[in-house]
Amino acid sequence: MRILGLDSSGLVASCAILDDDKLTAEYTLNFKKTHSQTLMPMLDVVAKAIELDLSSVDVFAVAKGPGSFTGLRIGAASIKGMADVMNKSVVAVPTVDAIAYNLFGVRDLIVPIMDARRSQVYTGIYTFEDSGEMSVIMPQCALAIEELIEIVNQKGLRAVFLGDGVPVYKDRIEELKRVSVLYAPPHQCAQRAGALCALGKILYEKGEYTNASDMRPDYLRKSQAERERENSDAG
Amino acid sequence: MRILGLDSSGLVASCAILDDDKLTAEYTLNFKKTHSQTLMPMLDVVAKAIELDLSSVDVFAVAKGPGSFTGLRIGAASIKGMADVMNKSVVAVPTVDAIAYNLFGVRDLIVPIMDARRSQVYTGIYTFEDSGEMSVIMPQCALAIEELIEIVNQKGLRAVFLGDGVPVYKDRIEELKRVSVLYAPPHQCAQRAGALCALGKILYEKGEYTNASDMRPDYLRKSQAERERENSDAG
Repeated sequence: MRILGLDSSGLVASCAILDDDKLTAEYTLNFKKTHSQTLMPMLDVVAKAIELDLSSVDVFAVAKGPGSFTGLRIGAASIKGMADVMNKSVVAVPTVDAIAYNLFGVRDLIVPIMDARRSQVYTGIYTFEDSGEMSVIMPQCALAIEELIEIVNQKGLRAVFLGDGVPVYKDRIEELKRVSVLYAPPHQCAQRAGALCALGKILYEKGEYTNASDMRPDYLRKSQAERERENSDAG
Repeated sequence: MRILGLDSSGLVASCAILDDDKLTAEYTLNFKKTHSQTLMPMLDVVAKAIELDLSSVDVFAVAKGPGSFTGLRIGAASIKGMADVMNKSVVAVPTVDAIAYNLFGVRDLIVPIMDARRSQVYTGIYTFEDSGEMSVIMPQCALAIEELIEIVNQKGLRAVFLGDGVPVYKDRIEELKRVSVLYAPPHQCAQRAGALCALGKILYEKGEYTNASDMRPDYLRKSQAERERENSDAG
């Protein structure tokens, strides 16, 4: 089974091709350009390198959110377009779950944090079971960083933080933590389409997929435009 | 500090740029083309994407071996060439250590296996300490797979196998193992220049670097040509 995956939910743009148990290609950039400039040209580079015929892709996987609203829309539009033309299934992978999957085999608490602005993080809590399966202890959500740290403290277990929220909130974590905390090194810290594809494959095999027209990003929160409109309607 | 890393020790060709704690770019292919065709064009793609000025690179990192003799020579020649022209340091990262570093935070035994032909694997045994530091339990070496499994059995601890030797030797491992064994998922299984750069940074900070002219691949075993010559000299 061939899976094509894209992740443009955060600062990183990443694409990958997974063939059964082999990651055939993965290309990730964390650079100042916008995803609308980088994502499809990156996929084009990969496609040329591995002589990819788009009709050979069985499943399209994408980070469904949370994350940057624009980034999520670019990822979703790209995947929906390809899956629609090819009439193939789409796996919409929860962004935070895919980040946690970077840390396969870690049996401490895995705590991805994405900077969600307005003093919040997109986060969740995960761990790996003896079987090698990832289990979701707290599903992805938006929380104040202080609230998250208190939840982690109450678990009383060692935690590994990762994600683009780490440089933003590391000082606050260090200040408030009452458990032992590690931070993932740079190669494990951010979104990777390879992890997204690997988790996407598991979700697909569980039947958790949809078609191109039904796939929707899951923003978890309302956009700034929506909030402003509501405020002005109320005012 | 900016590190440019290449890994062409095995089936995978991979290049990455690490800027301090940020993995700015990573591009990995596991495709049928030879590394002499892919590696430098891949680096060229990445360099263009992030507007890389080679003179901005502080340290060059490369998988020093073990691995494919030709692959190691291509990686070493490329890195030595760039580091020599730029007059910068080279970190020669042990290949098996870099593969193990894919599994940051795993406190079971980490056992990378690369298919070394002649019924051997290039391997080593690693784990992560509470501090987040990787410790080497058995340094990289060439062993018969049966000998390795016996060593792992004697440790009596859960082990995670990874590397391109897994599809070759998984049946043998399943047959002989007397401990609980997991296999890393595809996104964690093979060489990644991102992991190489992250580990290379740690080695550099410990002073474990050299210059372009002194860097030598470490093949761990003699090449087929050398063995044949010795046999014919002896015969």
